[in-house]
Amino acid sequence: MKQTLVEKIFSNKIGKAVYANGTVFSPIDLAMGTDATIPITIETFNEFGLENIVNPDKIVLVNDHFVPAKDIATAKFALMMKEFAKKQNIKNFFEIGRSGICHVLLPEKGFIKPYDIVVGVDSHTCTYGGLSAFSTGVGSTDMACVWATGKLWFRVPETTKIIFSGELPKGVYAKDLALYLIGQLGINGANYDMLEFDGELIKNLDISSRLTLCNMVIEMGAKAGIINADAVTQKYFREKNLKTEDIDFNSDNGARYKKIIEIDVSKIEPVIACPYSPGNIKTAKELVDLKIDQVVIGSCTNGRIEDFRVAHKYLKDNEVHHEVKLIVIPGSQEVLKQMEEESILIDFIKCGALISPPTCGPCMGGHMGVLANNEIGLFTTNRNFLGRNGDSSAQVYLCNPAIAAYSATKGSIQIPEF
Amino acid sequence: MKQTLVEKIFSNKIGKAVYANGTVFSPIDLAMGTDATIPITIETFNEFGLENIVNPDKIVLVNDHFVPAKDIATAKFALMMKEFAKKQNIKNFFEIGRSGICHVLLPEKGFIKPYDIVVGVDSHTCTYGGLSAFSTGVGSTDMACVWATGKLWFRVPETTKIIFSGELPKGVYAKDLALYLIGQLGINGANYDMLEFDGELIKNLDISSRLTLCNMVIEMGAKAGIINADAVTQKYFREKNLKTEDIDFNSDNGARYKKIIEIDVSKIEPVIACPYSPGNIKTAKELVDLKIDQVVIGSCTNGRIEDFRVAHKYLKDNEVHHEVKLIVIPGSQEVLKQMEEESILIDFIKCGALISPPTCGPCMGGHMGVLANNEIGLFTTNRNFLGRNGDSSAQVYLCNPAIAAYSATKGSIQIPEF
Repeated sequence: MKQTLVEKIFSNKIGKAVYANGTVFSPIDLAMGTDATIPITIETFNEFGLENIVNPDKIVLVNDHFVPAKDIATAKFALMMKEFAKKQNIKNFFEIGRSGICHVLLPEKGFIKPYDIVVGVDSHTCTYGGLSAFSTGVGSTDMACVWATGKLWFRVPETTKIIFSGELPKGVYAKDLALYLIGQLGINGANYDMLEFDGELIKNLDISSRLTLCNMVIEMGAKAGIINADAVTQKYFREKNLKTEDIDFNSDNGARYKKIIEIDVSKIEPVIACPYSPGNIKTAKELVDLKIDQVVIGSCTNGRIEDFRVAHKYLKDNEVHHEVKLIVIPGSQEVLKQMEEESILIDFIKCGALISPPTCGPCMGGHMGVLANNEIGLFTTNRNFLGRNGDSSAQVYLCNPAIAAYSATKGSIQIPEF
Repeated sequence: MKQTLVEKIFSNKIGKAVYANGTVFSPIDLAMGTDATIPITIETFNEFGLENIVNPDKIVLVNDHFVPAKDIATAKFALMMKEFAKKQNIKNFFEIGRSGICHVLLPEKGFIKPYDIVVGVDSHTCTYGGLSAFSTGVGSTDMACVWATGKLWFRVPETTKIIFSGELPKGVYAKDLALYLIGQLGINGANYDMLEFDGELIKNLDISSRLTLCNMVIEMGAKAGIINADAVTQKYFREKNLKTEDIDFNSDNGARYKKIIEIDVSKIEPVIACPYSPGNIKTAKELVDLKIDQVVIGSCTNGRIEDFRVAHKYLKDNEVHHEVKLIVIPGSQEVLKQMEEESILIDFIKCGALISPPTCGPCMGGHMGVLANNEIGLFTTNRNFLGRNGDSSAQVYLCNPAIAAYSATKGSIQIPEF
């Protein structure tokens, strides 16, 4: 029987054919945790009464949420993770200064391969679908089970296929696609589904944009997003000197989909998610002149070098508006290095941007740019729930890096000309 | 009657001759505050029932302690300061991304001139004695009085003169001089005194080193430190395109000193302040091989470009030890820019240092590298009191930037060869 990509991935992993709504107990290829969630996982693992994790080579531990420690509590989280990594011989432990936002770091370091099954104690683990892996966020208890057994159970998700046709208009980015889709489907519009992205547009989309797109499927309740491996995928892995000969299976023609949705992207314009939901979408045009207090460019959604190249166009030879705070957060130490080498960093420094170390910080309102009462934020991040980003009277608007950068120089939401 | 420099400064300011232990009500040339202390000052000012500050052009407000905001409380501090600056027409308000650690920023921006009387709501305001100003830290209530009247009362301090003779051995820096002196005098050894630094060594000391030296006089209880203006001072101001013709008065020969202490610096070797006091001084040699968890290079003591040039020698083409966190904190956006332009920054990024925005952060255990239980820090900062830098079981050692950088690559305290 014909299979979707996710059905093939699980079938391949467990060695027999499975289909949507089947339940599997599957080996896990990679299990990721961060300083925000691993302490709870460690406590749970200890409660299980177990000594050693079964698969230290498949564990990645990343310092990214509170980097570097902002107080004693977060310092203790980081130390607990460091000591656990040492005790359990987890060599893939990323210390501050050699780390990055997990979902930027893992693809960059070559941890993600097509058809892998990846779980992470972070809801945006769905990002890696951009590299044709099945990846999803799990709870700390589930992660403790992975440490104990190397496996986890899943209900194989049904797949909704999104076919993007047409060409993206200038100034419209993968972030706009993601936000537009959330606006169309709603924040519960894809609950537990696999979202498989397809169509001519996808074939031409670079890996960074694919990661951005898959990153935000959780905002529609999807279990994961995925894109079939293709020439772009092959090229990405070749450039990383990683094996690509295994990249050989994709969704079958005639596989069973729950829904197929076609979207002509040539009609899409830049959009912005308004408070307090990533699904509260308006066109950027409708928000022009809205005064802003703080701009954040970064996060697992838009913290890759490609995002900063876009922002750079509008910040080069320019100045941050005197009433605006601009916080730039490279997604990893490697991205910071690239920014320096491409002379992007110096222009950001000159224009008056605060350069933060790689961290999730302001995205989850926990560090590096928390908002005060009534402040208005324009962020390239992925969530803007009431109270998430600081004081409960603060408001966050979500947008693409071009609008964020350009608006930072203007003091209000403005759309750059192309 | 012959006068010391501080007596001359106050006499000049109030228009009649005053001497040590006299009381003056003096005009203030510059009054500085930060996000950590200004909120309390504002509250006090409001309690006074006053509307407008008398001297907005003489006020400088700097975002540096919690940069950028780590939580809602610190976000509110920053917003309160920003709104106050706007309401009171204080144009010298430094927003994040265009700011720096106050004591690095103010000299850099040309706010400090010889013979000025400067107060700041921060104990290390004594730093500016390196530029021949009388400068000292005051409380928030005193600052509110300055806002209300433009003046403040002082008891003119008695002066203890420290004469440094001989040449500094290689690998011994101004930081070692400061620590050595604290070790000799004790942490209450100069209570309320003016410490005037003199001698052949001082004549050859660059401004950055003079600022480092004066920065730490508060650790001996001194009211302020000061160095007579000379050719080095003149050159510094000429390079900044600031007027220098006013630089014309210094301590008289035969002025009355409380004490004169002569120190032959050629005998001094690199020293380290051990927990929990900047006065608990040992030679670096005695501490070799002590394992360290975190290194911080930065702060108002050692966060200038000259400090990072020193650190760079040991970090270039090297790697941070895998068990060590290295946090590098440029003293200002300008210092960060210089680091980029001198190719220091790229080497720090490559070696695995976390690059922090300019902030006081870990020095006061409030942000960007707070220590966890039992962690050992090696910092170029100025204080290591019990509990100051994180958990009360953490310990901090204070040293110069060369030892900090070199040790970061080794995982334990080590002294570089020269």
